[in-house]
Amino acid sequence: MLDKERWFSEPCKDAGNAISYEIDAHLHHEKSEFQTIDIYKTTHFGHLMAIDGFIMLTQRDNFLYHEMMTHPALFTHDRPQDVVVVGGGDCGTLREVLRHAGVKSCLQVEIDERVTRLAEQYFPELCSANEDPRAAFKFDDAIRHMAEAEDESLDVIIIDSTDPVGPAEGLFGPSFMANCFRTLRPGGIIVQQSESPLIHQELIGQIRGNMTQAGFDAIKTLCFPQSCYPSGWWSATMAGKGRDLSQYRQADIAQRDFKTEYYNEGIHAGALHLPEFLRRALEHSPENASNSQ
Amino acid sequence: MLDKERWFSEPCKDAGNAISYEIDAHLHHEKSEFQTIDIYKTTHFGHLMAIDGFIMLTQRDNFLYHEMMTHPALFTHDRPQDVVVVGGGDCGTLREVLRHAGVKSCLQVEIDERVTRLAEQYFPELCSANEDPRAAFKFDDAIRHMAEAEDESLDVIIIDSTDPVGPAEGLFGPSFMANCFRTLRPGGIIVQQSESPLIHQELIGQIRGNMTQAGFDAIKTLCFPQSCYPSGWWSATMAGKGRDLSQYRQADIAQRDFKTEYYNEGIHAGALHLPEFLRRALEHSPENASNSQ
Repeated sequence: MLDKERWFSEPCKDAGNAISYEIDAHLHHEKSEFQTIDIYKTTHFGHLMAIDGFIMLTQRDNFLYHEMMTHPALFTHDRPQDVVVVGGGDCGTLREVLRHAGVKSCLQVEIDERVTRLAEQYFPELCSANEDPRAAFKFDDAIRHMAEAEDESLDVIIIDSTDPVGPAEGLFGPSFMANCFRTLRPGGIIVQQSESPLIHQELIGQIRGNMTQAGFDAIKTLCFPQSCYPSGWWSATMAGKGRDLSQYRQADIAQRDFKTEYYNEGIHAGALHLPEFLRRALEHSPENASNSQ
Repeated sequence: MLDKERWFSEPCKDAGNAISYEIDAHLHHEKSEFQTIDIYKTTHFGHLMAIDGFIMLTQRDNFLYHEMMTHPALFTHDRPQDVVVVGGGDCGTLREVLRHAGVKSCLQVEIDERVTRLAEQYFPELCSANEDPRAAFKFDDAIRHMAEAEDESLDVIIIDSTDPVGPAEGLFGPSFMANCFRTLRPGGIIVQQSESPLIHQELIGQIRGNMTQAGFDAIKTLCFPQSCYPSGWWSATMAGKGRDLSQYRQADIAQRDFKTEYYNEGIHAGALHLPEFLRRALEHSPENASNSQ
């Protein structure tokens, strides 16, 4: 039905559905040390990057994911200064973090340097903050990096990873989460991309369980649309170290000195409320009492 | 890439993307007087209905659309008693309306009786209120029905139509909207499905323009996830006749005596806030001042 010469399709085995984009050109294909990376030029969504056949982002709709992975956490933290992005090789998360003038350092720890080099070439707008003096890059295993990182040295950690298979699997485990907890200062916040509310409820519960086990006090799963990911609906799960997550810096959001495409105060407030089915599914786990309506 | 024997795909010409479902069986195919109707059994989303090749609903995810087309309007209206559903042949919207005990009548005006008969067969759970004494059915052209309907005889009108091409085109025009305005009592509310926030911003602006032109005072476009529609993100636009839409019956939502899967008070509150890009796109039209943040 979809001509395979004209369409790139990502079938989702867990859900029996697929998302496809019509393409004008297959611009790049390579096997890096870690994974297969493809870049396509789509007809309507700009450039598209796929890793091991899974769509990572398109130029047209990545703003949804990147803004929701960053601004809710950064506007909840009282004074975020030192931030680590785990994964995030396309640099879009780094860019959004550095829109916050108070941030003093943002280190991106991505295992595959090729993702970043290709982002610089095909998604230059996402790399516009790469030369910012506050930006730093380490191309290494984030599991090792976080194991070796200093106690209480960070304010916000953002786990902007691929799905929990392959290189990213360890980023969804309890020992990695324990190291994140240890390296956060009191009042610190972690954010982890936590897949689809419609398809991956069990995984969301596991992520929240890891966070509770690591010692986090408050947990919130924020849902948002993301058209290029399975089901078109995605989530980010935040956890706070010795802090609540229901209050945030409302006045600072209203007075922010940068432009967003999706995020604003109303979107932030709304995203703190779970859909009914997810609220019910998660409330069986004791760690989720803090995300109730 | 997707085996056409195993997958049903709906390409979206306006966006160069497609949504596909893996299928176990093609259960039904017919050409009714108005359109082509297909029913598939999917591997993970239950039954799927397509009209003229466009996915109308699946059993697994229709709750998102049906709840957001009904409950925000019905919980905003002070005392909704008489409701008309325009289109809505699958009966899911009717079912949600009749969950409200105060509703005295709900008339579904669907042009194609075959859609409802097939829904009864393949989506019986959506038809569970069809025998409710408050439910009524008219299989006729809703444009004619609304032109002939009495002045100020309705509290809520819900336009649950197909896309604005083919039989539904007239439902998106100014003269139909004028008749809806005329038939609503003071304080009445209209809701129209208004396509994808990501893809159809221009259409959303036109719908809102028609509403303003017809005399409605307040307009709100509510966005919500809907995985089986193009971009996985959809919207419903509400308008109020001589009333505001920012206040709603919060206590009644909290004390509702029926179960929802998506909708709750937090979801309602959140949906009243537009994403930034849509707020900016719509604010150029004067009718949209009422939907600002």
